[in-house]
Amino acid sequence: MGKPKLVTLLTDFGTRDPYVAAMKGVILGLCPGTQIVDITHEIPPQDVLAGAVVLGQAARYFPPETLHLAVVDPGVGTERRILAGQFGGQTFLFPDNGLITFVAQWAPAETIVSVSNVSYLPARPPSMTFHGRDVFAPVAAHILSGVPLRKLGPQPETYELLDIPPPAQREGGLVGKVIYVDRFGNLVSNIPGQTAQQLYDDLPSVRVICAERDVGPLQGTYGFVGAGEPLALVNSMGLIEVAVNRGRACDVLSAGVGAEVRLRPA
Amino acid sequence: MGKPKLVTLLTDFGTRDPYVAAMKGVILGLCPGTQIVDITHEIPPQDVLAGAVVLGQAARYFPPETLHLAVVDPGVGTERRILAGQFGGQTFLFPDNGLITFVAQWAPAETIVSVSNVSYLPARPPSMTFHGRDVFAPVAAHILSGVPLRKLGPQPETYELLDIPPPAQREGGLVGKVIYVDRFGNLVSNIPGQTAQQLYDDLPSVRVICAERDVGPLQGTYGFVGAGEPLALVNSMGLIEVAVNRGRACDVLSAGVGAEVRLRPA
Amino acid sequence: MGKPKLVTLLTDFGTRDPYVAAMKGVILGLCPGTQIVDITHEIPPQDVLAGAVVLGQAARYFPPETLHLAVVDPGVGTERRILAGQFGGQTFLFPDNGLITFVAQWAPAETIVSVSNVSYLPARPPSMTFHGRDVFAPVAAHILSGVPLRKLGPQPETYELLDIPPPAQREGGLVGKVIYVDRFGNLVSNIPGQTAQQLYDDLPSVRVICAERDVGPLQGTYGFVGAGEPLALVNSMGLIEVAVNRGRACDVLSAGVGAEVRLRPA
Repeated sequence: MGKPKLVTLLTDFGTRDPYVAAMKGVILGLCPGTQIVDITHEIPPQDVLAGAVVLGQAARYFPPETLHLAVVDPGVGTERRILAGQFGGQTFLFPDNGLITFVAQWAPAETIVSVSNVSYLPARPPSMTFHGRDVFAPVAAHILSGVPLRKLGPQPETYELLDIPPPAQREGGLVGKVIYVDRFGNLVSNIPGQTAQQLYDDLPSVRVICAERDVGPLQGTYGFVGAGEPLALVNSMGLIEVAVNRGRACDVLSAGVGAEVRLRPA
Repeated sequence: MGKPKLVTLLTDFGTRDPYVAAMKGVILGLCPGTQIVDITHEIPPQDVLAGAVVLGQAARYFPPETLHLAVVDPGVGTERRILAGQFGGQTFLFPDNGLITFVAQWAPAETIVSVSNVSYLPARPPSMTFHGRDVFAPVAAHILSGVPLRKLGPQPETYELLDIPPPAQREGGLVGKVIYVDRFGNLVSNIPGQTAQQLYDDLPSVRVICAERDVGPLQGTYGFVGAGEPLALVNSMGLIEVAVNRGRACDVLSAGVGAEVRLRPA
Repeated sequence: MGKPKLVTLLTDFGTRDPYVAAMKGVILGLCPGTQIVDITHEIPPQDVLAGAVVLGQAARYFPPETLHLAVVDPGVGTERRILAGQFGGQTFLFPDNGLITFVAQWAPAETIVSVSNVSYLPARPPSMTFHGRDVFAPVAAHILSGVPLRKLGPQPETYELLDIPPPAQREGGLVGKVIYVDRFGNLVSNIPGQTAQQLYDDLPSVRVICAERDVGPLQGTYGFVGAGEPLALVNSMGLIEVAVNRGRACDVLSAGVGAEVRLRPA
């Protein structure tokens, strides 16, 4: 290939058990010298939505031809499919459970296949509880070794996307909801900053309401309000976020994933 | 050498302090371009048994000629020896305290030496509290650079293995015990699934008892029982594990390392 | 260049969110094949002192020509400068807030510049909340690609160092303070073991007092006192540390960063 081989991993396996290392060992055994970057292994167990948000936000910053291997897989051991797809020039390998949702929003699928060609699947039956090591990792190594996606299986008629309605115009303003809480306790909504800009001519007069609390207009950055004060801003993902300067918004507002975020014009 | 140089690290140092990075810096200074894979640094402090389980389960998935550097070392600063050995075609560098127990069960030692040749040990006396950086890392770099193990020191007459009796046939069934609790709270026993298969013709009728609670027969995977229900299965390590579907078995059963796991035939 | 390109990262971003991976993606997109080593991402949020200690202790073990990218940056989005400097043959990129303090103590700056040349800064305005991804990472990639520091901007007249007075001789002995608490709960002081050696002819008779508790003379290693007993030693950083054998000194002594550590001669 001549190009450096780069694979990222995103899982809910944590880093204290042998699980992630076993996956890396399998990949490096089949494809020596591959560069492996951890996106994270701390997705809350089986939380496909959190995994989908983090994958969507991290993957876009990687170069084309990166392979992203994402395993948050409550359906392991059942009949759920494993998909491989190309989105935005990058390649993704993932269970068919919606984990690809935000990647697909960012860039439509150029290619997508259901991994079923037994030539590229393990000869021995895999562990029913650890497809990350026994199925995903060897298939990833095949992709890294240059096997084209179309050889892995047929194109599926459809595939799973999480049901996250876009923000909606209602009486009283634009209504979205919190889709992610980061380690700092910031409440990340599904409302793009751009949408707000296009919608409101006088954006500085628009107030943000989260969990029924008015946290004021959009600020430039956290330090624009006093320590301990809540605020809203367009965060580094381009999404409207409710935060507390030097504090944890999830605690101060007693809010989490699913909480309503509303933009209320003057 | 021409081959990619690959070293894994397993320690109880955690990842928030400078300790692990210092080890990596020493290795990369002496052996530039080495690929470093973290197995884990979250072994509970000084928990040689947990380290031995994770090392045994992760190492086997790596390619031959991987060097595994494992430092869970309550005896740092005392006279305990440092060993280097070849097991299953891979190389291991570790303190002589039983950390190699499950690797040695999986593959007998092909070579083993006590690292004592002063040509390969630091000229200056090492820190008494951080041999990981001052002794293990430079010796690992020598091995990665191609120094054969036999030059590092003489073969020891014996070396430490943890005293973990294999599962035993007793009145009432096969009795083993929990040797590891993973981050999901799953209770991993020392009873291989294969042993159970060989022992019982009618395995589906055999019940698993853990901490005096009957958790039923062996299941295929977690989702075969209801959410919150305990179960037993042969896990991805090939060992019998007691789990709770979408829950934490260690909490639900109030059990941990050392708890009895019993297979009771019908 | 011919040389392996090596960059380390130190941040307070944690590892569960997409932030660190986004930085790595940007670096690998601009400078493919770069080897990336995490020093840590678990600096407590905005804790510049903890970041400075860990950076100072980890960086010195890396080879010359390593680039260390350190982002603990409470001033993100304000006018604080970004500096690039060469210290001890290594290169550092960091916010001008004192994060470089212990590196600068270890090796004086050979070169230092304020990064301001727009040719090497992002064309689009960066996110106000994530300069790690939008400013630090691309500038790091330029440095890794061979851009000399002097092209990045002018030499600043001065730069920030944390105000940590060195240990002082007082009535009753040498007085320093705790500057870092590691994951084991060890209390690391700012008193170098060497200073104590030079000061006291009869060092074994000198007692260490921490948080008004006499923890005895300097020991060789943790195991020289009974389990649960406090002790003091010269740690692997070369600093006097107060610890508890198989316990957490910060809890046993109810002490943390800022607590007084005193050496009291007989």
